[in-house]
Amino acid sequence: MKQFLPTTLKSLWKKPQIGNVVDVYGWIRSLRKSKNVCFAMVSDGTCQQPIQVVATPEQAHLLSYGASVKVQGKLEISKKAALGKQQYELLAEKIDLYGKVNNDYPIQKKNLTTEFLRQYPHLRVRTAKQNDMFRLRSDTLEGLRSFLAKNDFIETNPPLLTSSDCEGAGEVFLVTPHSKENDFAGNSNVSNKDEQKSLFFGTPTFLTVSTQLHLEALALGMSRAYTITPAFRAENSHTSRHLAEFWMLEVEIAFIESLDTLTDVVEDLIKYLIQYLQEKGHYREHWNHVLKQWHRISYTEAMDALKNSSNAWHDPPEWGNDLSSEHERYLTDAYLKGPVFVTDYPASIKPFYMKPSSNNTVAAMDLLVPQVGELVGGSLRKDSITSEEVPKGLEWYSEMLQQANTPHGGFGLGIERLLAFLEGNATNVRETIPFPRSSGSIFA
Amino acid sequence: MKQFLPTTLKSLWKKPQIGNVVDVYGWIRSLRKSKNVCFAMVSDGTCQQPIQVVATPEQAHLLSYGASVKVQGKLEISKKAALGKQQYELLAEKIDLYGKVNNDYPIQKKNLTTEFLRQYPHLRVRTAKQNDMFRLRSDTLEGLRSFLAKNDFIETNPPLLTSSDCEGAGEVFLVTPHSKENDFAGNSNVSNKDEQKSLFFGTPTFLTVSTQLHLEALALGMSRAYTITPAFRAENSHTSRHLAEFWMLEVEIAFIESLDTLTDVVEDLIKYLIQYLQEKGHYREHWNHVLKQWHRISYTEAMDALKNSSNAWHDPPEWGNDLSSEHERYLTDAYLKGPVFVTDYPASIKPFYMKPSSNNTVAAMDLLVPQVGELVGGSLRKDSITSEEVPKGLEWYSEMLQQANTPHGGFGLGIERLLAFLEGNATNVRETIPFPRSSGSIFA
Repeated sequence: MKQFLPTTLKSLWKKPQIGNVVDVYGWIRSLRKSKNVCFAMVSDGTCQQPIQVVATPEQAHLLSYGASVKVQGKLEISKKAALGKQQYELLAEKIDLYGKVNNDYPIQKKNLTTEFLRQYPHLRVRTAKQNDMFRLRSDTLEGLRSFLAKNDFIETNPPLLTSSDCEGAGEVFLVTPHSKENDFAGNSNVSNKDEQKSLFFGTPTFLTVSTQLHLEALALGMSRAYTITPAFRAENSHTSRHLAEFWMLEVEIAFIESLDTLTDVVEDLIKYLIQYLQEKGHYREHWNHVLKQWHRISYTEAMDALKNSSNAWHDPPEWGNDLSSEHERYLTDAYLKGPVFVTDYPASIKPFYMKPSSNNTVAAMDLLVPQVGELVGGSLRKDSITSEEVPKGLEWYSEMLQQANTPHGGFGLGIERLLAFLEGNATNVRETIPFPRSSGSIFA
Repeated sequence: MKQFLPTTLKSLWKKPQIGNVVDVYGWIRSLRKSKNVCFAMVSDGTCQQPIQVVATPEQAHLLSYGASVKVQGKLEISKKAALGKQQYELLAEKIDLYGKVNNDYPIQKKNLTTEFLRQYPHLRVRTAKQNDMFRLRSDTLEGLRSFLAKNDFIETNPPLLTSSDCEGAGEVFLVTPHSKENDFAGNSNVSNKDEQKSLFFGTPTFLTVSTQLHLEALALGMSRAYTITPAFRAENSHTSRHLAEFWMLEVEIAFIESLDTLTDVVEDLIKYLIQYLQEKGHYREHWNHVLKQWHRISYTEAMDALKNSSNAWHDPPEWGNDLSSEHERYLTDAYLKGPVFVTDYPASIKPFYMKPSSNNTVAAMDLLVPQVGELVGGSLRKDSITSEEVPKGLEWYSEMLQQANTPHGGFGLGIERLLAFLEGNATNVRETIPFPRSSGSIFA
């Protein structure tokens, strides 16, 4: 590959050519000026390690915290390398100031809370902490894909616009064409004629809550299909683990006959990912604990454990009801102290497409993890289903299962929840995605 | 990695263990029964090469074209290997029939047109041709990401729900929350109260037409950012290259100062991709031609060439107007006979964020390719812009450029058009995406 673009710090650190004159580009992350010398830490966001620039007061006099610069200088071993501090420094020969910051620049070198930074989604990427999170996000997507490619999965893109609601679960977004001629900007009384709704697609159209049913169609021809895709829920939730727009890994596998095998795949995927991230230089203390034995219990066993505990429940556990957040937290944080797969849920609380595992349970599994709760949900899928048994608009799904179906199953994994789990410290999903969307307002 | 899942044909072909008894899974793609022996070609969709199964009439008597099966048998070198035909065959010991096909199964072994198959998006993946296209799609996504990762780009996910319209170009989709309680299925008179619109996000909210502006924010902290993302246009177009829901690669690069460099990156990306696909076993005859020299001309030079041609134009070329499809086709198919970058368009026909390259042109480039037309659009971005100069709702964008901006630029590449270009033969974009969405109807 030819080298068209300026050198990044990431590539510089791969082979630091001591004594050479190099150009580096980035933003000033710290600045220390004294009478004779000035030290600036410059980061370009491509890796964790910034570069220390050593400049004269004359070279540095226009510089300020946050500014963007190009520095030409000689790369040297730092005098402090022996002290275990930064290994390299750049002796500035020429500094070009690209962009200053104004007095109202909110990103300052002090402890900015995540809540404060959330007000500036267009600027917070410039902090070391958010920058590190977004690199973790990038490497996580890469790691998930690496596992799937090694196991012969084919990446695909099922539709986001859909006329049916896979989960039958709650609130969706309606999508209607809108002409720019009705000047909408800033006007909250958008007029939206009923005719428009039926005209465009010929049927009411929604944003997908899960692409699973379409992905099943693709797995029934590709054997192993996956997508990393946006999904949408119009829930008015303000918890630390709900977003109106989120990303999901969805996986469907043909010729799979056992729920245990599906569970094995999920456990192996996440353990592989953590090792992949470690090899990429990421580190979080709790990962070593996560890599140990995971637990599997049936929903019925989980209910028994909840009932036998001495906890004073807000929602008393009862067979046939869904697990609430306090139940999930008890199982992962107190009872088993680690990730746990809960299997074989009551059929009555699960969607129509899940395969029975007894006369009143289905071959479903949810992965619950500490602090975050439900991270993965999956199941074996029914072998056949009549067009009368499916929700309206899903006749194609029933038709599909009638034609050369195979045993199959799959799961969905929330990317933002995965990142909150990986990061630990009860991270809010709003910190794991660049521009979080949830009910309230859209600033940028 | 542990081996949880059944063997795929893809992994079988990597190390065919002759003489071993193996299980293969898949769908019957052809079937030939005679009095003494039966030959079935079975494909699982994970790779191009099916496996030939040799069975007795008794083993095969329930089999039919299209059915899904599990075959246990001994892998042997085919007797026809010497004739250059299939190398391996599986001597069936046991055949399990998973799913039969009904009499109305539309996927039959005959020449099915793409228009016919388009009526069965949930089944057409089972044809060799569509299956091959979707594997090309998967490997294309992988190849694009491979190039970008090698060049230190960070993958990210800007929002799809947005309150502003980046391009200012035409028709968008309005998004409003919708309660399941208003039973919508099959009912085209969806009631949608005005209050709902303003309640959820506090402002009218649309599906993105391009995530570029948000991606710029991320590049101004990560240096090199990209996303492969869905985008939406509510255009009532019925051409072979328009979809209402499509996927785009969007790339933003900080510290880039020349349009030529941006163009170099795009050319290198696509040439790298083609070589990557060849290494993955894909082949299309016209790729060798595509890998040769590409052209670059300015918009003004393109206009001169169009004017100097002897073509009878439907839209006469005129400086200051956009290139029409017939103009694009002339430039790529007749005048230059290959891909061409057209640069430095009139500022009056381009969006507000592009950097001037003269007093009436901007530093923009479009990549036009034979048969498909515009495949990539990109530009350098303005260095600064006041809050009065941006469209309403984009004050954050102007604020962002005022804070430590750097020279930067980027481009967008339509994934479905790229696949149509790679496939050749004037492929319709509807064949490149599993469930195409355009105005008319949504079947599945």
